[in-house]
Amino acid sequence: MSKGLPNRDTDFSAWYNQVVKRADLADHGPVKGTMVIKPYGFQLWDNIKESFDKMIKATGHVNAYFPLFIPKSFLAREAQHVEGFAKECAVVTHTRLKFDDEHGIVVDPESKLEEEIIVRPTSETVIWSMYKKWIQSYRDLPVLINQWVNVVRWEMRTRLFLRTSEFLWQEGHTAHATEKEAQQETLNILELYRQLAEDYLAMPVLTGLKTESEKFAGAVKTYCIEAMMGDKRALQAGTSHNLGQNFAKAFDVTFQTKDNKEELVWATSWGVSTRLVGAVILTHGDEKGLRLPPKIAPIQVVIIPISRNEEQEKMVKDYLDPIVESLESADVRVHQDWTDRSPGFKFNEWEMKGVPLRMEVGPRDVENRNVVLARRDTGDKSFLSKDEAVAKIPDLLDEIQDGLFQQALKFQQENTHNISTYDDLKKVIKEGGFVRCGWDGTDETEAKVKEETKATIRCIPMDEDPEGLTCVYSGKPAKHEVIYAKAY
Amino acid sequence: MSKGLPNRDTDFSAWYNQVVKRADLADHGPVKGTMVIKPYGFQLWDNIKESFDKMIKATGHVNAYFPLFIPKSFLAREAQHVEGFAKECAVVTHTRLKFDDEHGIVVDPESKLEEEIIVRPTSETVIWSMYKKWIQSYRDLPVLINQWVNVVRWEMRTRLFLRTSEFLWQEGHTAHATEKEAQQETLNILELYRQLAEDYLAMPVLTGLKTESEKFAGAVKTYCIEAMMGDKRALQAGTSHNLGQNFAKAFDVTFQTKDNKEELVWATSWGVSTRLVGAVILTHGDEKGLRLPPKIAPIQVVIIPISRNEEQEKMVKDYLDPIVESLESADVRVHQDWTDRSPGFKFNEWEMKGVPLRMEVGPRDVENRNVVLARRDTGDKSFLSKDEAVAKIPDLLDEIQDGLFQQALKFQQENTHNISTYDDLKKVIKEGGFVRCGWDGTDETEAKVKEETKATIRCIPMDEDPEGLTCVYSGKPAKHEVIYAKAY
Repeated sequence: MSKGLPNRDTDFSAWYNQVVKRADLADHGPVKGTMVIKPYGFQLWDNIKESFDKMIKATGHVNAYFPLFIPKSFLAREAQHVEGFAKECAVVTHTRLKFDDEHGIVVDPESKLEEEIIVRPTSETVIWSMYKKWIQSYRDLPVLINQWVNVVRWEMRTRLFLRTSEFLWQEGHTAHATEKEAQQETLNILELYRQLAEDYLAMPVLTGLKTESEKFAGAVKTYCIEAMMGDKRALQAGTSHNLGQNFAKAFDVTFQTKDNKEELVWATSWGVSTRLVGAVILTHGDEKGLRLPPKIAPIQVVIIPISRNEEQEKMVKDYLDPIVESLESADVRVHQDWTDRSPGFKFNEWEMKGVPLRMEVGPRDVENRNVVLARRDTGDKSFLSKDEAVAKIPDLLDEIQDGLFQQALKFQQENTHNISTYDDLKKVIKEGGFVRCGWDGTDETEAKVKEETKATIRCIPMDEDPEGLTCVYSGKPAKHEVIYAKAY
Repeated sequence: MSKGLPNRDTDFSAWYNQVVKRADLADHGPVKGTMVIKPYGFQLWDNIKESFDKMIKATGHVNAYFPLFIPKSFLAREAQHVEGFAKECAVVTHTRLKFDDEHGIVVDPESKLEEEIIVRPTSETVIWSMYKKWIQSYRDLPVLINQWVNVVRWEMRTRLFLRTSEFLWQEGHTAHATEKEAQQETLNILELYRQLAEDYLAMPVLTGLKTESEKFAGAVKTYCIEAMMGDKRALQAGTSHNLGQNFAKAFDVTFQTKDNKEELVWATSWGVSTRLVGAVILTHGDEKGLRLPPKIAPIQVVIIPISRNEEQEKMVKDYLDPIVESLESADVRVHQDWTDRSPGFKFNEWEMKGVPLRMEVGPRDVENRNVVLARRDTGDKSFLSKDEAVAKIPDLLDEIQDGLFQQALKFQQENTHNISTYDDLKKVIKEGGFVRCGWDGTDETEAKVKEETKATIRCIPMDEDPEGLTCVYSGKPAKHEVIYAKAY
């Protein structure tokens, strides 16, 4: 902890890597591109998971588990889908190892599979092959199933949490009797994602529609939440897809309607992943490390006892016990750091780990029946009576939660620019920020702007108002108002 | 639901398969040997998971996530370990698919990996390769990490929940400074497994030590919980391994002791899996289907409203609303079945699904302020006043939990036989049951008995008392008292 972090303003990327490492969130696994999520990072993910799991259960969804392995032929059934995932598939071809005198442990060639197996990059195909068995009548609909699982997409350039060959996520897969209902589900989930991001991760997001070139392989429409990171780049934080009848067609899933007709089923799918942990770091982190929104923080209050001898230690401990008990019974997640490291070391470490509140208690505080509280978000320190502190902490945590959101929102708004010329677009993209402007709706314009500026259309925002706008690139009347930005 | 189940006494195996299917617990996945866990079965697993997760967290363990993929060379580092798993490894060899004019979608030969990757059958090797990085000093110990993940062991003969190519489990991996501490951890976990089985799954277990031939590949000692299923066969329901310094040696994991010496780290690992769902079915199921212990049942009370017209329906609904509210605020998991199927159909279905209590309410019950309660375990029906029922249900659930345990315990005890001759052993094994007797401690005797009777030594029970016993096979003095049985 003794050395500082890389400069966040001049080397954001190195800063990020060091925060992940020094906050003890994750490590690289032995197979290239894989990630080990360490206990502190995992608890953070688990809190995000629990928050969203409650939201989807409250809206009628249930969890299940579908297999990791997909027959190659299944992936190939939906043409766009396989095209989208073909270049990043881990393929299982054999099922045994054997000992070879010359080479030691080798793959047994006799165990070669007749049909190769794909490790799921996403589960539409295996799930719709099951829905084919489970759905016969309108009575079986809707199916509102979600799963929390690992998926694999072979990546060459990886970064912990943001892009890894294996990651954890939830994938919802729903089946509906009508197009309208599927579209409504797609939008309902988008709204839940917005709530998860804004109310739990304190991360403001834009909600919008992806362009044709950016949509999910196999979807009719892809909606997304997009957030601005601390370096003013965009991060896609969650996607909700209206799949139309594409997978129902590919797997021949029909149902009998109330009036005895046979129709194809309508589908949605949607996911958020461990990438959200990366988003939290990139949104709220500062020069001292992580800053965690209290609602998802593994530890909300860290207590640093200060003492010079055993007598003082006992005194501080006796003083702290009822404080900890009161906080825990108010559902505050508290951790006491009784290790033998120096207070200064501990301050730095828990700041690095982003704990929202630090409580310091030394012998003098015990005498005065006080505690010292330090806020991680603002650095403000306050001296409070013990009882006052216990009573105030839950409110203070809410204040920090809101403060982090407001700060990120201000940053996003200040760095989002409504512009009307291509020169302005290039300038903003170069200096960093989101551009909001007109687009003529053509793939050509989108591709050219990407080629020339590295900015992509992040989304067509839900509240777009293209009337009267012109495309900044072609000068033609705008079909949509869009957000351009460089993205993770 | 109209047709009965296969006869449980004469065709236990077909009975099991039908219960899994008709209670809507699981289905076969498209790749041979894989399993789809359906929402009802998944909720059951999730309840088991949550129960155990609380137990390990209360004893200082934390969750993390390690990668699915293991380099082949890692698996090979511990000789016994790789020997144990070599014949059931899913091997990833390629990372891309491509389109071929003649064959369609094929594996791209140019994407062949330099070193093959194994899909984890268990994670000792990948985890100890990380511990090598994380552990330097006695201050870093103990490490008490667990993960809830999927693992793959290629199986030719599979059965849903009991033996599948992919399954879900928890695997704990701990690191300690002393042999004594590692042994204590191994036994502490064994005790937690006993509690999970007996107090939550209502499944009595024997705790004991595995013989050398049955222990985990790479362990010094393997302890287990073994339960008797409804067909009197044994099922290994959980194992806790003292790994000694085997994996520390294989991955060169040493630490600096307090007196500045360099020593190898001591290890344990332990796991329970979705097999426990199978164990619950096989332990408690009856001729009507599943019987679930209330503590892990997804639904504890199912309410069947009975009405002939809309007016009655409204009356019953108004009557039920406050009942449901009261039960839910007492943390009882309630489900109301308002579907338009007949009461008889519903009774059968929820009995099949093993819901511990059924509440029936019709117009006459509303008039009399009564409800009818039917117990799934005994079939007993009682007529209670509404308020009495609400107050009594939590106790009744405890009674059912205990009743299922006592019934299974009685069955286990009645079918466990202390014997002293080989003829008696053969007789018991043939007729079904556990044999408790002397064993001379040799691999030969163990192998011969297995060959001649298909019974294996399930464990050397913790409370063994070999003094004065002779080996039933060899007639030599017994080294251990053991449990022989046919096993799943």
